Amino acid sequence: MNDLQRRAAALDSADPLAKHRELFALDDTETVYLDGNSLGALPRHVPERVADVITRQWGELRIRSWDESGWWTAPERIGDRIAPLVGAAAGQVVVGDSTSVNIFKAVVGAARLAPESRDEILVDASTFPTDGYIADSAARMTGRRVVPVAPADLPAALGARTAAVLVNHVDYRTGRRHDLAGLTAAAHQAGALAVWDLCHSAGALPVGLDEHGVDFAVGCTYKYLNGGPGSPAFLYVAERHQAAFDSPLPGWNSHTDPFGMTPGYAPADGAARGRVGTPDILSMLALEAALDVWEGVGVEDVREKSLALTDFFLECVETYVPEGRVASVTPTAHEERGSQVSLRCEDGTDASAVMRELIARGVVGDFRRPDVLRFGFTPLYVGFADAERAARVLGEVLAGA
Amino acid sequence: MNDLQRRAAALDSADPLAKHRELFALDDTETVYLDGNSLGALPRHVPERVADVITRQWGELRIRSWDESGWWTAPERIGDRIAPLVGAAAGQVVVGDSTSVNIFKAVVGAARLAPESRDEILVDASTFPTDGYIADSAARMTGRRVVPVAPADLPAALGARTAAVLVNHVDYRTGRRHDLAGLTAAAHQAGALAVWDLCHSAGALPVGLDEHGVDFAVGCTYKYLNGGPGSPAFLYVAERHQAAFDSPLPGWNSHTDPFGMTPGYAPADGAARGRVGTPDILSMLALEAALDVWEGVGVEDVREKSLALTDFFLECVETYVPEGRVASVTPTAHEERGSQVSLRCEDGTDASAVMRELIARGVVGDFRRPDVLRFGFTPLYVGFADAERAARVLGEVLAGA
Repeated sequence: MNDLQRRAAALDSADPLAKHRELFALDDTETVYLDGNSLGALPRHVPERVADVITRQWGELRIRSWDESGWWTAPERIGDRIAPLVGAAAGQVVVGDSTSVNIFKAVVGAARLAPESRDEILVDASTFPTDGYIADSAARMTGRRVVPVAPADLPAALGARTAAVLVNHVDYRTGRRHDLAGLTAAAHQAGALAVWDLCHSAGALPVGLDEHGVDFAVGCTYKYLNGGPGSPAFLYVAERHQAAFDSPLPGWNSHTDPFGMTPGYAPADGAARGRVGTPDILSMLALEAALDVWEGVGVEDVREKSLALTDFFLECVETYVPEGRVASVTPTAHEERGSQVSLRCEDGTDASAVMRELIARGVVGDFRRPDVLRFGFTPLYVGFADAERAARVLGEVLAGA
Repeated sequence: MNDLQRRAAALDSADPLAKHRELFALDDTETVYLDGNSLGALPRHVPERVADVITRQWGELRIRSWDESGWWTAPERIGDRIAPLVGAAAGQVVVGDSTSVNIFKAVVGAARLAPESRDEILVDASTFPTDGYIADSAARMTGRRVVPVAPADLPAALGARTAAVLVNHVDYRTGRRHDLAGLTAAAHQAGALAVWDLCHSAGALPVGLDEHGVDFAVGCTYKYLNGGPGSPAFLYVAERHQAAFDSPLPGWNSHTDPFGMTPGYAPADGAARGRVGTPDILSMLALEAALDVWEGVGVEDVREKSLALTDFFLECVETYVPEGRVASVTPTAHEERGSQVSLRCEDGTDASAVMRELIARGVVGDFRRPDVLRFGFTPLYVGFADAERAARVLGEVLAGA
């Protein structure tokens, strides 16, 4: 055991979250799973819960389950489970549809709250692509135009023409955390609304939606919330905007009296206004079950461990990886870091080949074009020994060993 | 055994689809399930298949499953499984999102293919409400207006201002089948596009999308396709429109190179252009498994049995139900009937109370306000003895027995 390995062992024994790993199906000790920022690991109890949903709720109760098994109210109920993890009081978060569809609701919703003279929607220029594509469509359909702006330049770009800004809380590629509190305040000062994409922060770090006065937010549940592949996303509409929220997707599930089945649309109050069609119950209730792993855990505890893990990983990389082979594109300042570390391959090394070899050796991260290796750290199931091993194997791969 | 019971038994023994019932979890012989037009019954093999998706594909392979378990290509692959059931050649159907979201894509897509001078979207006035609400939003966001028209009046209402018509193939409340071939031809003759909602016909009767030159269609998979609660809907875009289809929800999954993650949007060719965000894999693969029950069955066989079942049910109702207590709102002409029978309670009888009592006695249909009892007949698992029993119990309930 070298010094880093001894330190990793000590950090793991002192880690109050270490026992949480047992809640996940991570029995294969040959694998270090650092891709929870793309697809969270399976909580061990989920298969049994979903089996009950399918076999008993669907198979035996059938149509009765819409009431008796609480299917109908699942979108708001699960929204309220997610709310404390993103700093929202109850009644403001609803689960359903994909992130992309929710971005559309949020950006159109925000644009419609702004006067027409505010004809610009500023979008984080380094955004995950779907946000930009969907914001373009939302802008086109509300008579606005999208202006891509580097996040650092956003405060200066805000002005009398800004209807809304759409920013990623944590950049998917670099792992950089943007200043949600500061940018939201700056947007408000300019008279604009702030829409945040929480895909890479929900479940990974405190968000503080209510505290910072965020207007709209959208997030993913299959990354740090471990909801399963393609599990439904969530939409936050701040309570003060709910009564005026004018959804572009006014499906029957968002009607105030859905079973009245009247030809005229009358929107529901509260979070339910963000619903659209019939919720995808199997995916949704798998997510609900997955959220049980948060029992007794606060996102602040997760944040503390996350920073310790990524600090330690960066230190291990520095020790194990030959100089000049990789450079971290993830900021070293804690307040600028999410829960992943992204390393750019230098010297023309083929990052995709490096990631393939890492995976072959049991270290699962992912590759983002053109040259980035991403390593996600999910504090609920990743430990310090994992971080040490990942960096060590990376060093071996890059040394050609 | 009375005469109807003897005939039911004979019809069931001669029924080539009778053996299909064993494929479904319908072991409770106390229940006659006539609500498959709301939520299809569970195919017996689905729980095991979903357990494999969760435990092995998600739990063990994790992120690798996007490629290795075929997750990424599921929307088009499952679309191609549904295509023959709605008379579409491969490559035109994609699965994902809710019916409501797909109605939005289809109506906006159709409107954008029409010249601006065509500023009206005609919508079936008796439509399932979500279609009308969403069409209103699509019209508002594309500079059009919705004109509600009774289906019988649609041919006369079509004109130089019509951009598109949106019609339900089978009315959710009355079970009336509309003339897809004739209305599509009339729309085309007027220079308009035809968008069909197949929620109550997909899997219940032949649709013939390609044969009749339908432009766009949307359908539900949790009714006659038994995909499970809230399973994803499907979108059909006729091949001739695919290259010009301009989706209002251009999420990253519809990009021609999604993992290029470039800021500029370049739409994929073919059915994939109808995708939006990350597909909800658990719900989607449950649906894929459920489609196995169609092996060796054509939708024409299902149609033949469906009409025989609803004919027989109507005959039983006439025999068992005291005169003047109910009136069928479902047409008697075969070409005007879907796969359900809707009975209106007469004489001020409280239809919701009648349905509660029917359910208490093991006959599960549903109630639609203000006075309609709906009985759905899914030929893959409903038999003639079920139809006889349902009508007999209805007669008993209405007689106050």
